[in-house]
Amino acid sequence: MTVEQRHDPSLRSFASDNYAGVHPEVLEAIATANGGHQVAYGDDVYTARLQEVFRGHFGEQAEVFPVFNGTGANVVSLQSMTKRWESVICAASAHINVDEGGAPEKVAGLKLLTSVTPLGKLTPELVDQHAWGFGDVHRSQPAVVSITQTTELGTCYSLEELRALCDHAHELGLKVHLDGARLSNAAATLGLPLRAFTTDVGVDVLSFGGTKNGLMYGEAVVVLNPDAVVGPAYLRKSAMQLSSKMRFVSAQLEALLGGDLYLRNATHANDMAQRLVKAVSDIPGIEVQRPVQANSVFVVLPPEVTVRLQEKHRFYVWDEHTGEVRWMTSFDTTEADIDTFAADIAEAMASR
Amino acid sequence: MTVEQRHDPSLRSFASDNYAGVHPEVLEAIATANGGHQVAYGDDVYTARLQEVFRGHFGEQAEVFPVFNGTGANVVSLQSMTKRWESVICAASAHINVDEGGAPEKVAGLKLLTSVTPLGKLTPELVDQHAWGFGDVHRSQPAVVSITQTTELGTCYSLEELRALCDHAHELGLKVHLDGARLSNAAATLGLPLRAFTTDVGVDVLSFGGTKNGLMYGEAVVVLNPDAVVGPAYLRKSAMQLSSKMRFVSAQLEALLGGDLYLRNATHANDMAQRLVKAVSDIPGIEVQRPVQANSVFVVLPPEVTVRLQEKHRFYVWDEHTGEVRWMTSFDTTEADIDTFAADIAEAMASR
Amino acid sequence: MTVEQRHDPSLRSFASDNYAGVHPEVLEAIATANGGHQVAYGDDVYTARLQEVFRGHFGEQAEVFPVFNGTGANVVSLQSMTKRWESVICAASAHINVDEGGAPEKVAGLKLLTSVTPLGKLTPELVDQHAWGFGDVHRSQPAVVSITQTTELGTCYSLEELRALCDHAHELGLKVHLDGARLSNAAATLGLPLRAFTTDVGVDVLSFGGTKNGLMYGEAVVVLNPDAVVGPAYLRKSAMQLSSKMRFVSAQLEALLGGDLYLRNATHANDMAQRLVKAVSDIPGIEVQRPVQANSVFVVLPPEVTVRLQEKHRFYVWDEHTGEVRWMTSFDTTEADIDTFAADIAEAMASR
Amino acid sequence: MTVEQRHDPSLRSFASDNYAGVHPEVLEAIATANGGHQVAYGDDVYTARLQEVFRGHFGEQAEVFPVFNGTGANVVSLQSMTKRWESVICAASAHINVDEGGAPEKVAGLKLLTSVTPLGKLTPELVDQHAWGFGDVHRSQPAVVSITQTTELGTCYSLEELRALCDHAHELGLKVHLDGARLSNAAATLGLPLRAFTTDVGVDVLSFGGTKNGLMYGEAVVVLNPDAVVGPAYLRKSAMQLSSKMRFVSAQLEALLGGDLYLRNATHANDMAQRLVKAVSDIPGIEVQRPVQANSVFVVLPPEVTVRLQEKHRFYVWDEHTGEVRWMTSFDTTEADIDTFAADIAEAMASR
Repeated sequence: MTVEQRHDPSLRSFASDNYAGVHPEVLEAIATANGGHQVAYGDDVYTARLQEVFRGHFGEQAEVFPVFNGTGANVVSLQSMTKRWESVICAASAHINVDEGGAPEKVAGLKLLTSVTPLGKLTPELVDQHAWGFGDVHRSQPAVVSITQTTELGTCYSLEELRALCDHAHELGLKVHLDGARLSNAAATLGLPLRAFTTDVGVDVLSFGGTKNGLMYGEAVVVLNPDAVVGPAYLRKSAMQLSSKMRFVSAQLEALLGGDLYLRNATHANDMAQRLVKAVSDIPGIEVQRPVQANSVFVVLPPEVTVRLQEKHRFYVWDEHTGEVRWMTSFDTTEADIDTFAADIAEAMASR
Repeated sequence: MTVEQRHDPSLRSFASDNYAGVHPEVLEAIATANGGHQVAYGDDVYTARLQEVFRGHFGEQAEVFPVFNGTGANVVSLQSMTKRWESVICAASAHINVDEGGAPEKVAGLKLLTSVTPLGKLTPELVDQHAWGFGDVHRSQPAVVSITQTTELGTCYSLEELRALCDHAHELGLKVHLDGARLSNAAATLGLPLRAFTTDVGVDVLSFGGTKNGLMYGEAVVVLNPDAVVGPAYLRKSAMQLSSKMRFVSAQLEALLGGDLYLRNATHANDMAQRLVKAVSDIPGIEVQRPVQANSVFVVLPPEVTVRLQEKHRFYVWDEHTGEVRWMTSFDTTEADIDTFAADIAEAMASR
Repeated sequence: MTVEQRHDPSLRSFASDNYAGVHPEVLEAIATANGGHQVAYGDDVYTARLQEVFRGHFGEQAEVFPVFNGTGANVVSLQSMTKRWESVICAASAHINVDEGGAPEKVAGLKLLTSVTPLGKLTPELVDQHAWGFGDVHRSQPAVVSITQTTELGTCYSLEELRALCDHAHELGLKVHLDGARLSNAAATLGLPLRAFTTDVGVDVLSFGGTKNGLMYGEAVVVLNPDAVVGPAYLRKSAMQLSSKMRFVSAQLEALLGGDLYLRNATHANDMAQRLVKAVSDIPGIEVQRPVQANSVFVVLPPEVTVRLQEKHRFYVWDEHTGEVRWMTSFDTTEADIDTFAADIAEAMASR
Repeated sequence: MTVEQRHDPSLRSFASDNYAGVHPEVLEAIATANGGHQVAYGDDVYTARLQEVFRGHFGEQAEVFPVFNGTGANVVSLQSMTKRWESVICAASAHINVDEGGAPEKVAGLKLLTSVTPLGKLTPELVDQHAWGFGDVHRSQPAVVSITQTTELGTCYSLEELRALCDHAHELGLKVHLDGARLSNAAATLGLPLRAFTTDVGVDVLSFGGTKNGLMYGEAVVVLNPDAVVGPAYLRKSAMQLSSKMRFVSAQLEALLGGDLYLRNATHANDMAQRLVKAVSDIPGIEVQRPVQANSVFVVLPPEVTVRLQEKHRFYVWDEHTGEVRWMTSFDTTEADIDTFAADIAEAMASR
């Protein structure tokens, strides 16, 4: 065997849901799709089947374009929704604004019009801050409202909030893009089928996320409203997001969405976050930030406590100035992980 | 089990080496790297190990940046080697010119300066067609010579050819990029260690290919001359080629290069191409195009023979005008596959 | 004569300083530079002379690159100061963010990191909002602080403010770009030589504006710190800002800066703004917004007054929500223009 | 007077038609348009009038967008005709390929598909070399055929050639762009109205050139087929080609096209080229290259003759390898200029 195991597979952290590995059912699906030859670049039977799976979830009009990663899904989506001189309204905390190395600007030439949002959620009022100047060539033309569900701050738009946003955007002639890197977590939180809070509220294009929910790699551009896009297949290719052996991306996504794995994984991750927030909310001196509505918990900790905890547990400081930290759970976080961590937090807080 | 097997894993074709699946040792490596948590985005132990593996092959100065696919490897490499106003000299048949959907131009703003090359190989003379106008702001400044080894036409640069090209490029102040989507096939053809015909002849940056040689996905930007690049890590991210769960890309590449799998797979694919060319070269009416020096065979067939063969076997017509077709072998092509195919070819030719 | 005069050359408005025409001395300079042949694209004697003129104003290290317009000057400047993955910190009200049709993002792939600033001025504290994440590939790397002098809101940075900003930026490893579309107005306001509040406080690259101060067309990228840029000549060309008959751009800029025309024009425009603000500040119901430190006056007017005034005078509503309007003076605004306008304003206010 | 005359207005060269200055009638038009205020960015009366002028020449459906320079006209035109993943077929000698610093690729992300053409002219057969792969996402999709009239090599497409090319392009679903930097010279050569060999043969979008024919600066994107473009006004702005004081661009273009100045200037320049070629064609040892059908003459000279001539006359070596040089005439070239030059050529050739 060429590759030896160099890590301890029993250790988990609270740093990110993409620190986790691959769910066993996903690995099994990959093995199932292996062997023999299949047409490359998406003309294979697994990608054909995936179309059915996505149509089952998102409606008969839906079309899915598997890609490699979330930045790719977002940039391909947004390019397909915009003309060369158009711009995108989003929260300042949006992944496309903060965490994609400037790819929307650099790869797609897109301007992002950002608003500061305490809960990571846009509102019709915040959209209005940017939705003006239509027809004025001096202004990069606002064309898309991009929101994230669940948000980068661990919150979840309600059905009403989503509907109000989509309606408002459409009234203004804007399209709606949803960055669903953690869409499954929203399904778990809302207790709703995926379609209910995407297609049915008026989302036009979705970036569906698999990697943070148990895949090895694999996300998807999901066109919910075909009239909202031009050329997603060409844009996926020119954005370098077209996988040659696509059957393996599609099989992974099928493993997630063909049954209920997407929901099992997300529900578990969310539950672990609830267990954690419950365990720490009684500890004096811990301030939980924002409602915990997905798989992350943000708290403000005394800096010395953060330092001490990080000796044993890996997690990220979210804001150096305030001392806010982020704890993230994943599909494979165990109750024991939570209990041990909570105990260590309590001890670190107590021994200040 | 959510995903059922929808294809016949015993069937193979001659369409492309990326129609093949994943080598069992690679799948095993993925499983080995699974479980527990590992730091995302490349700060994991498998990617650290991969650095050693690449340094072992390409020299102590080498640095490896795993990416998703070949277009990504090429565009990140070329961006890291160029300033915003520079251009790249390549063969008209180069993958970057023909098969990447315009990504070099669109994502990186690069101009490609192309020459028609019968064997898919650049020469110092062809480089000279484009290497002029230095210092003239009206001319996109030639900065890089990009070659492919083995070429898109199934040929292989000799050591002497490579050395002459690199020396000539460097004398002109140009850097050398090598698209090594099938670099392992060249190692097999040349009977040389990877380093001998890359680092040692003066290649500055390499796109190393794994997918066509048995990986599920995974290529790498390999910086052989650190002075030739700026910011590859930033460029990989902004080009949307940074995998979050990178341990799985790295483990695959380690499976290939940590031992001799890269060479076993490539040697086998090359041998199958030789078996095929040998089997058909005596059939009257078949014209083999160009020397067969890797894992593809180009022949001119009567159109009706192509049609008839394609009823049973999948392969691509390379040139509609001339009737040239491409047959490609892969790591999993069997001797029986070849013999059956050759017999069908002979029969189709005989029964015209 | 082919072209007949189709407008009334005695009519002026308060809409914008680029509604004005060309100063007679500038037209004269154009005629002087005409006739015979001169080398195109900047190798002419007028552009050579212009280098001396700019060095006289900005120091011996300065280098000037004439361009067509302000957006061009800004985008060439910023590209020359950044690597492909870097971003620019600016005020939300900056011209590059609001009025350039997304050119910085689209042409240069630049990400703008914006802060809301009541007076259109950045501060060290506002810079700190964005100056973090250095070395993190997920974050487009902050590299430049771009400020405007005088600002889009008619205010003027003091020498102390500029020095503090530049020092702070440099301490953070950031470069400083100054959009000087109205730099001459700042010279008039501050009563300082151009160099005192650019080169001498640490500005690295300057977009010098001529069009709003009496030229027909013509701005300039002025490199004040040669170490801060790479390839401005190539970037000017690839940004389509290289004029073939450059002698006429250079002669205009020389007309402005070779003597004191820049200062005469700007001082006059500023004076007219002062005359206007003085005339209206006693009118009940008029609220002057922000200090008037250049050639624009922002006031909040009752909407019906705006409508009535616009029947006779052209000017822009700056903010539909608040009723704020902008009145702008130029080099050719007369005292009579101001007095008539002020009288009409008073009357419109009185007759509500 | 601030600007002194630093050049000898009686000296002309054979280097380029953009070494010339501004025609007196154009300067006069500028003065006519000066004074008072006019709405900026094209909402002025001179630009309104220009629309009529262009409709008069090119048909009622034509729309004109004045820009700064030829590269700008080409890049705005081509962007307006293409989707993000499309490419442009052109001659290898095309200005967009050779002389624009890579702007089409860099600013617009366009891929150019080039063919070598002895006379600088594309043909239907050459178009066919590139017009394939429609619908294949791996191939940047051919969308536009771009030709130059008169060509960069001093030749002129005949009406039949143009019609055949446009018909062929349209049959293939391709649009036709014409780089008309020297369109007026073609009108003079062909003896046809502008419309006859543009709109009427099927050209979709035209870059109309003024600078090389007596303007100070100013070209235009002319949309001949409104169905062939999307968003030219937005693209002009984001390409940094929108002049604020546009009245002066429009007045210049009106001076050229409102009467017959375009034709007078071009006819004169062409005539001077004919006078030159006639004068030198009898000199033994001079090989005139290609038919002289516009305002440039290409000849192969012995290198020592070139050196000697360049001591007194400025012109460019076109091809270092062959010794080919280019002599270019302009609207202000005099018969005496030609005669003196021809005599010097004869003498230099004789005294070898």
